[in-house]
Amino acid sequence: MNTTGYPPGKPLRVALLGCGNVGSQVARILLEDAENLGLRAGAPLELTGIAVRSLDAERDADLPRELFTQDAEELIANADIVIELMGGIEPARSLILGAIGHGASVVSGNKALLAKDGPALYEKADAAGVQLSYEAAVAGAVPILRPIRDSLSGDRIRRVLGIVNGTTNYILDQMDSTGASFGDALKDAQALGYAEADPTADVEGHDAAAKAAILASLSFHTRFALEDVYCEGITSVTADDVAAAKDDGYVIKLLAIAEFWNDDSGDPGVSVRVHPTLLPRTHPLAAVHGAFNAVFIEAENAGELMFYGQGAGGTPTASAVLGDVVSAARRMVLGGPGRTETTTGHVPARGIETVSTSYSIGLDVTDQPGVLAKIAHIFADTGVSIETMRQRIDQTGQDGEPTAELRIVTHRALEASLAATVTQIAALPVINAVTSVLRVEGI
Amino acid sequence: MNTTGYPPGKPLRVALLGCGNVGSQVARILLEDAENLGLRAGAPLELTGIAVRSLDAERDADLPRELFTQDAEELIANADIVIELMGGIEPARSLILGAIGHGASVVSGNKALLAKDGPALYEKADAAGVQLSYEAAVAGAVPILRPIRDSLSGDRIRRVLGIVNGTTNYILDQMDSTGASFGDALKDAQALGYAEADPTADVEGHDAAAKAAILASLSFHTRFALEDVYCEGITSVTADDVAAAKDDGYVIKLLAIAEFWNDDSGDPGVSVRVHPTLLPRTHPLAAVHGAFNAVFIEAENAGELMFYGQGAGGTPTASAVLGDVVSAARRMVLGGPGRTETTTGHVPARGIETVSTSYSIGLDVTDQPGVLAKIAHIFADTGVSIETMRQRIDQTGQDGEPTAELRIVTHRALEASLAATVTQIAALPVINAVTSVLRVEGI
Repeated sequence: MNTTGYPPGKPLRVALLGCGNVGSQVARILLEDAENLGLRAGAPLELTGIAVRSLDAERDADLPRELFTQDAEELIANADIVIELMGGIEPARSLILGAIGHGASVVSGNKALLAKDGPALYEKADAAGVQLSYEAAVAGAVPILRPIRDSLSGDRIRRVLGIVNGTTNYILDQMDSTGASFGDALKDAQALGYAEADPTADVEGHDAAAKAAILASLSFHTRFALEDVYCEGITSVTADDVAAAKDDGYVIKLLAIAEFWNDDSGDPGVSVRVHPTLLPRTHPLAAVHGAFNAVFIEAENAGELMFYGQGAGGTPTASAVLGDVVSAARRMVLGGPGRTETTTGHVPARGIETVSTSYSIGLDVTDQPGVLAKIAHIFADTGVSIETMRQRIDQTGQDGEPTAELRIVTHRALEASLAATVTQIAALPVINAVTSVLRVEGI
Repeated sequence: MNTTGYPPGKPLRVALLGCGNVGSQVARILLEDAENLGLRAGAPLELTGIAVRSLDAERDADLPRELFTQDAEELIANADIVIELMGGIEPARSLILGAIGHGASVVSGNKALLAKDGPALYEKADAAGVQLSYEAAVAGAVPILRPIRDSLSGDRIRRVLGIVNGTTNYILDQMDSTGASFGDALKDAQALGYAEADPTADVEGHDAAAKAAILASLSFHTRFALEDVYCEGITSVTADDVAAAKDDGYVIKLLAIAEFWNDDSGDPGVSVRVHPTLLPRTHPLAAVHGAFNAVFIEAENAGELMFYGQGAGGTPTASAVLGDVVSAARRMVLGGPGRTETTTGHVPARGIETVSTSYSIGLDVTDQPGVLAKIAHIFADTGVSIETMRQRIDQTGQDGEPTAELRIVTHRALEASLAATVTQIAALPVINAVTSVLRVEGI
C-alpha cells in the first residue's frame, strides 16, 4: 500500500559528496546493484552526481566520468537524498545544512562532524522533517546505531563497551599474539594498510572518542560532545603490560565506554571514556581479533548483547551507508516522518575522577620484609580494596639487591581514590617503580 | 516536529494477550517503567488490559488484578497496539487478524504462527496500513530481525547461520565441556529449567526450524514456510561424536541455516535447514556458550557480522517485545506507514538433496590392508573429494579382530552425492559400522 501517493517508478535522486575509500564503493554499488536497491527502496535510486575536489584524482572503482562535478551546491539542490562522505568539519557541515534546507534526507559517515556538531544538525533535520542517519560513523559495517535507537528503545541501556577502532585493535591483538612492542606492531599495521602514515587519530584514541560520544548520545538520549569524553590512547602500552595481563588471564583492548551512573547521591550521570582496558580473556570482547570491531551492551532487561563485524574498509562501510540510504528512501516512498528520535533527556556527563573503575597496578619493589604490609596499609587508608595481588618474578636489581614484581588488581573504587593510592605507593622508598597502571572492565 | 497532529500527551492504548513467562514481564515493565517508555514512544503507553484464559492462575510478576480479563475481543477492539504473547496457532491468529481489522498495530513473539501463516498476516497488515512486528520471535533479546530488514537493506545477504535455540545449545555445550551424554545433559538442562519436561520441540529442531523460516524470509525477501525447512534435531548426537569433533578442532552446534544459492544452472534458490553442524572452534559461533543465542550473517558487502545475546527468558524477551511496541508507537505519534517491507521476490526453496555441504563421517573399520583404498575408491566414484582423513584409535573388535576408527571430513559436495557415498561405504564388508555422519560449516 502506498500511503503517500509517491508516483510509482519515479526515481529518487541520490547525490554523493566525496569519492574516497568508502564513497567510491557506494557509487559502484549504487550503479552495479541498482535493480536490487530499487526493489528494496520501493523506487529506483538514481545516482545524479558525485561532488569531488579534483576531477582527475584516481578512484578505487571504475566510475563514469560524467558523474563527477566540483559543484556540490548545485548537486544537493536537486537531490532527494544526499550522502556525505567527505569527512572533516567544513565544507561537510555547510553542505549538510544546505541539503537539509532543500528538504533532502542526509546520510553521513562523518564521525568527527557528528561528535562535534551533531546536536545542531539533528535539530535542523527534525525541524525540516527530514532524516539524518549515520550508521557508518560507528563500527563501519556493524549495525549498531539503529539497534540502539530502535530495537532497544523499550529497554534501558546501562553500559556500552565498544572496540570501535580497528587500527588499535589490530596493534593490540598483534602485541598479544606475538609479543611485539607497540612500535613494531604499529609498523606492521602501517605496512598492511591498517594504520595511516600519521597514526595519531587512531593510536591516541581520538577516533574512538568521537564514536564514544555518538554511542553515548544514542544510548542515553542525551547529547554528549567530544569534550565530554575522557581519552587515553595506547601509545604507552608496553609489551610487558600485555605479557603481564596475559599471564593473569586478561587481554588489553582499547575500549570506548559509555556508562550510566546512579550513585548514592541520587544524581544520575554518564561516564564517557576511551582508554586501554584489561578484559578477562573469557569476556566476549576478548575474542575480537585483528581489525574487527564489536560493541557490547548491557541493558536492564535484555542483559548482555554483542554486535560484531568489520569496522572499516570501503565495501563494508558502504553497506552501512546504503542501509541508511534505502531506509531513508523507503520512508519517502512509503511516507513517514523524518524524525526518528523522540524526547531527549539531560543526564550530565561525569568527570573521570568521579567514576568507579578497577585498576591493575604493576610495581617493581625491593624484596624486603614488610613491603607488602606497607603497600596494603596505603590501600586500606585510601579505601581501595584489593581483588588479587600476585608476586610475579624475583629478579636482581641494578645494585645487586633482590627485587620483585607485584601485580595488584583492585576492586572498583573511585578514580580519584585510585589515583591517590598510586601516588602514595609511588612515594614509598621500597618502590623502585610503578611499571603500569591500567583500568580493568568485565570482572 | 509532529507531522501527524497526534494530540500531545494522549496515551496509546496497549492490550496484552497472554501472561506467561514473557507476557508477565512485559506487563510489569509497562507499569514500572512507564515514564521512560512514554518518553521513548513520544506518548504515554497505557496498558489497558491483559487477556488470559484463567483469571486465577499464578503469575511471575505482581500485577493489578483489575487488568486481567477473559474477553480478548473487547480488549483488542479498544487498543492502538496489541501485543500477542499467547503462542500457538489459535486463537492467536484470529485475534491478530481482529486487531489488524480494528486498525491496531500488532507486536507478536509467536514464531510458530509466523512461520506457518506469516505471509497471510503480513498481507493483511500491509493492506490495513498497520505494523506487524515480531523481533522477539527469533533469538529472544537479540536485535536481529530489524538489523536484517533495515540496516542490511542496501546489501545482499548470502548466508545466515544461527544458534537460535538456547536449550539445544546448552545441551551441546554441556556435552562439549563435560563429556556428558545427550541424555544426561538433557536431564541437567531440565533440572535448571533450560529444557521443558517434554523437550521435543527443542531437541528435534522444530523450534529452530520455525525461526529459520522467519530468518530466511527476511534475509531473502521471499516468504518461506515451515515446510521449506529441512530439519534434523540433536537426539542422535553422541558423546563420542562430540569427543571426536573436539579432537579434530571442531564443536557441534545446532544451526539454523539460510543460504542463497546461485549455481551454474543460473537458477537461484535458497536452502533453509536445521541440523547438528560441526564448526571449527575458531569460528565466532563456536564461542557461544550455555543458553545464549547468536546469529552470524555473511553479506556481499558488509562481510561477516554476528549478533549475540540472550535467546530466551521472560525479561530479556520482554526487551525485544517492548522495542517493537515503542517503535510502533513512535510511528503512530510521529506519523508514518504501517508497512515496512517493500517488494518481496520469489526465490525458490531448494531441497536438501540439491545443496552442497561438507560431511564429517565416522567409520568403524576392520584393520586390514586395502581398506583405505576401497573407501577412497568410492569417494572418487561418487565425485566427493576428501579434505582430511584421520585414523583415530586402534581397538580390538568383539571377535578379536583388530579394528580402527576413521574420521573423514569431505570438501563441499552435493548432499545427494554425499548420501550415495555413505550408502556405498556402509555396504563394504570391511566396514563394521558408520558411527556418525554430521555436516560441517565454517571451513
